[in-house]
Amino acid sequence: MTQTTSQSESNWLEPTELEAARQRLPILYVDAIPVRVDAAGAVTSVGLLLRVTGQGDMTRALVSGRVLYHERVRSALLRHIEKDLGSFALPHIPPSPQPFTIAEYFPTPGVTAFHDPRQHAVSLAYVVPVQGDCAPQNDALELTWFSPEEVLQETVLAEMSGGQGVLLRQGLAHVGV
Amino acid sequence: MTQTTSQSESNWLEPTELEAARQRLPILYVDAIPVRVDAAGAVTSVGLLLRVTGQGDMTRALVSGRVLYHERVRSALLRHIEKDLGSFALPHIPPSPQPFTIAEYFPTPGVTAFHDPRQHAVSLAYVVPVQGDCAPQNDALELTWFSPEEVLQETVLAEMSGGQGVLLRQGLAHVGV
Amino acid sequence: MTQTTSQSESNWLEPTELEAARQRLPILYVDAIPVRVDAAGAVTSVGLLLRVTGQGDMTRALVSGRVLYHERVRSALLRHIEKDLGSFALPHIPPSPQPFTIAEYFPTPGVTAFHDPRQHAVSLAYVVPVQGDCAPQNDALELTWFSPEEVLQETVLAEMSGGQGVLLRQGLAHVGV
Amino acid sequence: MTQTTSQSESNWLEPTELEAARQRLPILYVDAIPVRVDAAGAVTSVGLLLRVTGQGDMTRALVSGRVLYHERVRSALLRHIEKDLGSFALPHIPPSPQPFTIAEYFPTPGVTAFHDPRQHAVSLAYVVPVQGDCAPQNDALELTWFSPEEVLQETVLAEMSGGQGVLLRQGLAHVGV
Repeated sequence: MTQTTSQSESNWLEPTELEAARQRLPILYVDAIPVRVDAAGAVTSVGLLLRVTGQGDMTRALVSGRVLYHERVRSALLRHIEKDLGSFALPHIPPSPQPFTIAEYFPTPGVTAFHDPRQHAVSLAYVVPVQGDCAPQNDALELTWFSPEEVLQETVLAEMSGGQGVLLRQGLAHVGV
Repeated sequence: MTQTTSQSESNWLEPTELEAARQRLPILYVDAIPVRVDAAGAVTSVGLLLRVTGQGDMTRALVSGRVLYHERVRSALLRHIEKDLGSFALPHIPPSPQPFTIAEYFPTPGVTAFHDPRQHAVSLAYVVPVQGDCAPQNDALELTWFSPEEVLQETVLAEMSGGQGVLLRQGLAHVGV
Repeated sequence: MTQTTSQSESNWLEPTELEAARQRLPILYVDAIPVRVDAAGAVTSVGLLLRVTGQGDMTRALVSGRVLYHERVRSALLRHIEKDLGSFALPHIPPSPQPFTIAEYFPTPGVTAFHDPRQHAVSLAYVVPVQGDCAPQNDALELTWFSPEEVLQETVLAEMSGGQGVLLRQGLAHVGV
Repeated sequence: MTQTTSQSESNWLEPTELEAARQRLPILYVDAIPVRVDAAGAVTSVGLLLRVTGQGDMTRALVSGRVLYHERVRSALLRHIEKDLGSFALPHIPPSPQPFTIAEYFPTPGVTAFHDPRQHAVSLAYVVPVQGDCAPQNDALELTWFSPEEVLQETVLAEMSGGQGVLLRQGLAHVGV
């Protein structure tokens, strides 16, 4: 279903090469805020992944991941949503490639609201309605649906890291919440 | 399914009052470009309504209509799509109220690319994926699906009036076609 | 400097007619958030007008006003900024008519985050950098410049009415604050 | 004036490393369409650079370039505009980081409308008003200002390469031309 071509597969970076590139180049990412919407498109709930970090902390996260070589941005968005929410999530990838914002994650804290100690990542951010059944995959313990009001409470935002709470707030501002 | 409340119904303008307001105030509209998309959100086809004008001319049109008193913009969008494409169109109204552009239809030709001899209308324009079965309603003879390349041919754009061909071009530019 | 034509002047509504239309039609507005920016376009401060309401309350406000018949949206934006901030404000009206959001002010509180007891107004909202000298005009007591952090404090937002605090937050989210 | 820190300088890629990364990762770019605007923000002219390619062909180009490691997107935009148009161009970098679109330049022609034989580049595209004196720098022979109508003529668009003519059309659609 994803459009990742064999060419992009063969050009995947070796872990050590990726490590080196991460010290030298901004790395392109996509961030998706999964939402449920009503018939008129109004957001009724927002989905956050619950993960345990390497340090054993619980953290809530958006769907997020790297764009591969020779991969379309919209294909990367679909791939990461299916990887995190499962094959039956039925996401409605927006027809326009215009992101609602870009999040600039810097390795140095404080340059922007976004921080990633591993790298300088620039992420194209989208709000993505999902229509189907979502099930957390891989390393996520749970996918939790919050009402727009609940998800903006300080207690929830405080469980997000790297500035994703700020990005979530920006995305919900964009949809008029 | 639409959220038009009884209050908005009771405040509908009488035809003569609407006529008077149209000479004095900009009237708020929505324009929707109905599209089919693939799993990654890329536009695969564009739907245009075929209508016969009062003068007996054939014209191709977008979904378009007025926002009523006390009606949400997203409800107006849903109402006009259902009115023109039927109740089974299953439109995906965008979660964000940010239009891709606004079209300013002036009663005087040439002020902008948009013209409406009846009024000064300001229209919020959206690209709306539809997932279900569409059937032309009311005064439309046909709903025709074009590939993005076909729909941008001069012969098709020439069949659109009031500047809707320009708006269609702007909408398709927005989705990256 | 504004492009308001004599035709729009002659078609201004009489106060009683405007009153009647306000009970029947959504009225088109523009809202502008005046900002100062640095050389790279980052917002360094946000301007709010200080006004006294009819009830004698102090309130902080955005630049806001109606779009007239036969007036371009960008002309209305320029006209209201000059009216509120003076002729030397040197606003940079955005080249794109795409607003960052639309604010739907309902006469009934609670339908949206925006409320206007006089009318149903739909406002196209823009962030507008101003480069020149700003001086409050007409009914404003003062124009106050806040840092982006200050302006988002609850004490400031609480001085805004009709939901303009929400709109300000949405605008600052849009510029990445 | 640009905010490129010494850290980003020291992390510039060696030419051979950049070459290697270009075969493995999408590279982040910015594209800017320089425009002149009137007091109400309407685009009155569009600037294109005239360059001679390695093959001796004349080509018209937008301002375009790579985002460096640890560089803000808005700083990269400012740096490339100053590099191509000179230090007195006085660009108005948009306050919002939201690009009007993203252009995905693929090394394989035909995947998208954009093509770059050297690499897979993903470019964030902005329309940028410039207020000062512009002078072509470095490898550009000339900076030519066109009216919006002229610049969209097929003869002009045909002189642009890699799909920049498509991007120009999308940018002008975004500003309502």
